[in-house]
Amino acid sequence: MEETFVPFRGIINDLKGRLKCYKEDWTGGFNSGYRIFAPTTYIFFASAIPVISFGEQLDRDTNGVLTAVQTLASTSLCGILHSLFGGQPLLVLGVAEPTVIMYTFMYNFVKDKSEVGPKLFLAWAGWVCVWTSFLLLMLSIFGACSIINRFTRVAGELFGLLIAMLFMQQAIKGSIEEFRIPEREDPTLTEFQPAWRFGNGMFGLVLSFGLLLTGLKSRQARSWRYGTGWLRALIADYGVPIMVLLWTAISYAPTGHVPVGIPRRLFSPNPWSPGAFQNWTVLKEMLDVPVLYIFIAFIPATMIAVLYYFDHSVASQLAQQKEFNLRKPSSFHYDLLLLSVLVAICGLIGIPPANGVIPQSPMHTKSLATLKNELVRNKLVKSAKRSIKENASLGELYESMQEAFNQMQTPLVYQQPSSLALKELKSSTVLAASSSGRFDAPVDESVFDPEKDIDELLPVEVKEQRLSNLMQSLMVGACVGAMPGLKLIPTSVLWGYFAFMAIESLPGNQFWERLLLLFTAPSRRYMVLEGAHASFIETVPFKTIVVFTLLQLLYLISCFSITWIPVAGVLFPLLIMLLVPVRQYVLPKFFKGQHLQELDAAEYEEAPALSYEVAKMEADMQGMGKAVPHADEGELFDEVFTPSRGEIKRRRSPLKVSTSSSHQG
Amino acid sequence: MEETFVPFRGIINDLKGRLKCYKEDWTGGFNSGYRIFAPTTYIFFASAIPVISFGEQLDRDTNGVLTAVQTLASTSLCGILHSLFGGQPLLVLGVAEPTVIMYTFMYNFVKDKSEVGPKLFLAWAGWVCVWTSFLLLMLSIFGACSIINRFTRVAGELFGLLIAMLFMQQAIKGSIEEFRIPEREDPTLTEFQPAWRFGNGMFGLVLSFGLLLTGLKSRQARSWRYGTGWLRALIADYGVPIMVLLWTAISYAPTGHVPVGIPRRLFSPNPWSPGAFQNWTVLKEMLDVPVLYIFIAFIPATMIAVLYYFDHSVASQLAQQKEFNLRKPSSFHYDLLLLSVLVAICGLIGIPPANGVIPQSPMHTKSLATLKNELVRNKLVKSAKRSIKENASLGELYESMQEAFNQMQTPLVYQQPSSLALKELKSSTVLAASSSGRFDAPVDESVFDPEKDIDELLPVEVKEQRLSNLMQSLMVGACVGAMPGLKLIPTSVLWGYFAFMAIESLPGNQFWERLLLLFTAPSRRYMVLEGAHASFIETVPFKTIVVFTLLQLLYLISCFSITWIPVAGVLFPLLIMLLVPVRQYVLPKFFKGQHLQELDAAEYEEAPALSYEVAKMEADMQGMGKAVPHADEGELFDEVFTPSRGEIKRRRSPLKVSTSSSHQG
Repeated sequence: MEETFVPFRGIINDLKGRLKCYKEDWTGGFNSGYRIFAPTTYIFFASAIPVISFGEQLDRDTNGVLTAVQTLASTSLCGILHSLFGGQPLLVLGVAEPTVIMYTFMYNFVKDKSEVGPKLFLAWAGWVCVWTSFLLLMLSIFGACSIINRFTRVAGELFGLLIAMLFMQQAIKGSIEEFRIPEREDPTLTEFQPAWRFGNGMFGLVLSFGLLLTGLKSRQARSWRYGTGWLRALIADYGVPIMVLLWTAISYAPTGHVPVGIPRRLFSPNPWSPGAFQNWTVLKEMLDVPVLYIFIAFIPATMIAVLYYFDHSVASQLAQQKEFNLRKPSSFHYDLLLLSVLVAICGLIGIPPANGVIPQSPMHTKSLATLKNELVRNKLVKSAKRSIKENASLGELYESMQEAFNQMQTPLVYQQPSSLALKELKSSTVLAASSSGRFDAPVDESVFDPEKDIDELLPVEVKEQRLSNLMQSLMVGACVGAMPGLKLIPTSVLWGYFAFMAIESLPGNQFWERLLLLFTAPSRRYMVLEGAHASFIETVPFKTIVVFTLLQLLYLISCFSITWIPVAGVLFPLLIMLLVPVRQYVLPKFFKGQHLQELDAAEYEEAPALSYEVAKMEADMQGMGKAVPHADEGELFDEVFTPSRGEIKRRRSPLKVSTSSSHQG
Repeated sequence: MEETFVPFRGIINDLKGRLKCYKEDWTGGFNSGYRIFAPTTYIFFASAIPVISFGEQLDRDTNGVLTAVQTLASTSLCGILHSLFGGQPLLVLGVAEPTVIMYTFMYNFVKDKSEVGPKLFLAWAGWVCVWTSFLLLMLSIFGACSIINRFTRVAGELFGLLIAMLFMQQAIKGSIEEFRIPEREDPTLTEFQPAWRFGNGMFGLVLSFGLLLTGLKSRQARSWRYGTGWLRALIADYGVPIMVLLWTAISYAPTGHVPVGIPRRLFSPNPWSPGAFQNWTVLKEMLDVPVLYIFIAFIPATMIAVLYYFDHSVASQLAQQKEFNLRKPSSFHYDLLLLSVLVAICGLIGIPPANGVIPQSPMHTKSLATLKNELVRNKLVKSAKRSIKENASLGELYESMQEAFNQMQTPLVYQQPSSLALKELKSSTVLAASSSGRFDAPVDESVFDPEKDIDELLPVEVKEQRLSNLMQSLMVGACVGAMPGLKLIPTSVLWGYFAFMAIESLPGNQFWERLLLLFTAPSRRYMVLEGAHASFIETVPFKTIVVFTLLQLLYLISCFSITWIPVAGVLFPLLIMLLVPVRQYVLPKFFKGQHLQELDAAEYEEAPALSYEVAKMEADMQGMGKAVPHADEGELFDEVFTPSRGEIKRRRSPLKVSTSSSHQG
């Protein structure tokens, strides 16, 4: 991405790039067939559940002026518009926690002011959105997103981990709340007697942990030994919805003396109950807001603008990390422009605006990588089986697979000569072929078993398209109508899901992996080295890794502490943005350039050791001896983002590979 | 073992065999140093917790005539005597569920008879024990244990699985009971209000699942990547006690409104409370029992004798399975003789007798295998490190390790030429050595790293000694005095522990593995083949395995159903004994002899295919190419009994080994 501050240039570049692949964004989606429903449902839940919960929070904090109906409506509307007109369709939009905090603050500010009061709150918030929209427009026009380039792994991953901590905090807070009397409720009700509250809290723990543990297990279903293939795939693809259904059903098991209010369930007005839609005509009330307050609205607007600029761009960046091998261009400037339009629309119709969210956006990309892998895999297995039937030799077989692989590649005009190719055959396969005769002898399944050996040939690829994002947004919209159904879900299942999301976002985060490395016993570090691993583990001295990681941890803790400060806490992104100059000017004073580049590659720094391309070639050449954890039918993807975290992975030596790899099996 | 029915011959043979190694049984135990505490504590918990729970049950069913104090006392006393004077010290004794059921039945029989009544119950039970003792004496003298030889894997494993089911049933029943008002308690207490019962039940689920899940996790601690070595070893060795402590501590977390009775805790009188010891002078009351009742006592005595004969022998057999590579002789006849003495003693002092128990006995052997492995490992690592320091070649290094290994072998006079030896070095190690120079070049840690490569050279061995059994029995005895401490443990933690024991007893049970195989997808069966596996998986057609396993399952379900019939249900061992003629005369009509021998080797049948020794040699010769799951510091043993389930394991072909093994790594 070019670093430009010439007005409009960034936007125009983005538009040019994305328009070229706009058609393929749709055809690619439809080509996937029914399989597209798996990532769609996965992201729909990740999108809808937090939004419903934030809606409940907003409901409580604004005395019912805004509810889950509005947060769902906003998420759906912005999602639909973004999937249709947005630049990067991997980016998922939603009403996020910081927005809720800002709106709560704004409500508390105006509710006692006689000129505005609760009645004109939405109109005033409309003005805040208008100002925010204006600021975002300026930022996008003048290329503020160019500096996103300077956001290195160190900042993005710290932000990712912080969000995971906030989700986990919400899960814990929610579980504790289950033992208390909720605000707004009548404390004399049977279910709020101490005894029933205790029972409710304990039942909540059972449901939360139940959902969390079964949810995590179900994601690994592809690698289970048991059950037929379609069942395993079904559980892996739709495990989260299945588990939410299951634990909701279990929540209805206690009967008899147990009051109806136990366990507690989602609270939200139905969209057709009187008054639920009264705020949709906020536009005409905006002129009733006193001029002074219109100007005061500029203050929260600056905060929201900074927040959105940062959140939206980092979410987009984390959805496009290098290891995903994306083939379509980014669109930071143009997406910020679109966001400015979306914020204005939301403000004018009286709903809180949505912006790009973490961890949903990277989760989206990851689930699409699994999808792509399965599509390519099926095609290749078919081609390989045909070759074996036709008595092809190993060479011919490989060639036909290579051809099938190339057919699956998106043919894009702007595309750079792609480095994506089928990986080389394993040395053991070649060995087996050579020992069983000559290379030109017909290959059989004992030498190359398509069902199990193909996974090791596939590079990471993502099914980049707009359909999954559009569909999940439509499904979020449908939730507004399905409110009576959603209200059956216990709140404790929600808390379990928050914890699930926090944990799901960890693998692939190199900062997290380094933290784990600190706790790895020295005698067990060979385990890390034997598996596929980031190159810094070998090239950077362990002491340097420790110091770097501890510094980052300290920074993380500071950011986390700041979120506890009521309103100013919303501005924690500023602290994270501060990491950019720290990374650029301070860290190089304490760490060797080469080490820094290995730990946290920055494009603006000259790579002192291996260049990316050279390293890549070297890695490809070593590919022959490379042993990948054995996997089947895409289960690889449960693991793959742990190994392939951006930097090039190298092994200690080709010899050691064969030594260490035969420990297993 | 010789099949003999000549009076006393079996007993004399057993005594001769065991006397030879009696001294080593003690020195071997003391030589292990502090490490002996790990298996001791492990078995102590497995022994004490069910006994306490059965004591509670007896307390309820006999209106407090017998309590946990008596069951603990019996378990301790019998355990101490058996560890000192018993034949096979691996056998663990305890008061078991069938004894509890029989005693309950006996109590209900006499309590309304005016001639006996609750007052003379223990005296009458004393007569039952005397008769039982007499019958057991006859059985042991006339060599009834000889037919234990005819008990094949199919019967033993079915019994093991049945016991696991009964433990699991107890766990589930107990957890459900937590929601109900316990008998004998005052239902008007606060904690038995519906609301508090609901809370108690849910809290119980949290505690039970908490103990179960953390307990299972802690057993795998040796293979964790995190934490220092001693911490991992501590958690793996003492995980169960630590977790019981942890969850007991957590059970005290709720305060405030929560009544003291929540969660429910163990109930038992302190041994020093008035009346707790009144039954210890039962001997003098035995003469007050009417003569008619003395003869009626013969009827339950026959049932108990059959039960004990079976339980005691099968528990002993399962503790001495072939895959443990035991080096000291068995002692079925003599141990039955000793049991007859123990039963008489218990009857005369008015406590319920103890007998050999499952799954504790095989758990004991397994934990001693882990111990032995660690002792040998430490010695070998030391020897290897010295060799490397002295610049030895790979050959010299291996020789010195072989020597150290031999030193660790128990030098026994009667010992057959042992087939136990250090396994061959891996081909990859040899390859690495040859490529790095010549074989006589000094070896370094990149070729052979003692810390991680030695595990693969060690065969399964058991530290056979008497100390662990003696100490655990003494600890069970100490529980009687520690009753006030034990009463802090919540009953729900107990239920979790029952589930833990049920699950811990499954790995290594070939019947269980075959059941799992039925649910393994055909496309995933290669996973079973790639790992170490029992030979029948390759030599017996899958259809035959399915039919055999389903028949066995049907039999298991019949046995399980029978346990539900009140008193007759105690005699389910008869149904399992019926398996002996079924196996010998019926099954060969439906299955090929060769297949049957593979699935369920019987010594009385001529092995039609490979003989054990030939197969063993073949397996050893293939050892070079054999890849064992990579493991460290004995974590091997978490897994090893899954692979090494008795029959010889073979791989598909040496070529396939190198192919499949390099998938991993």
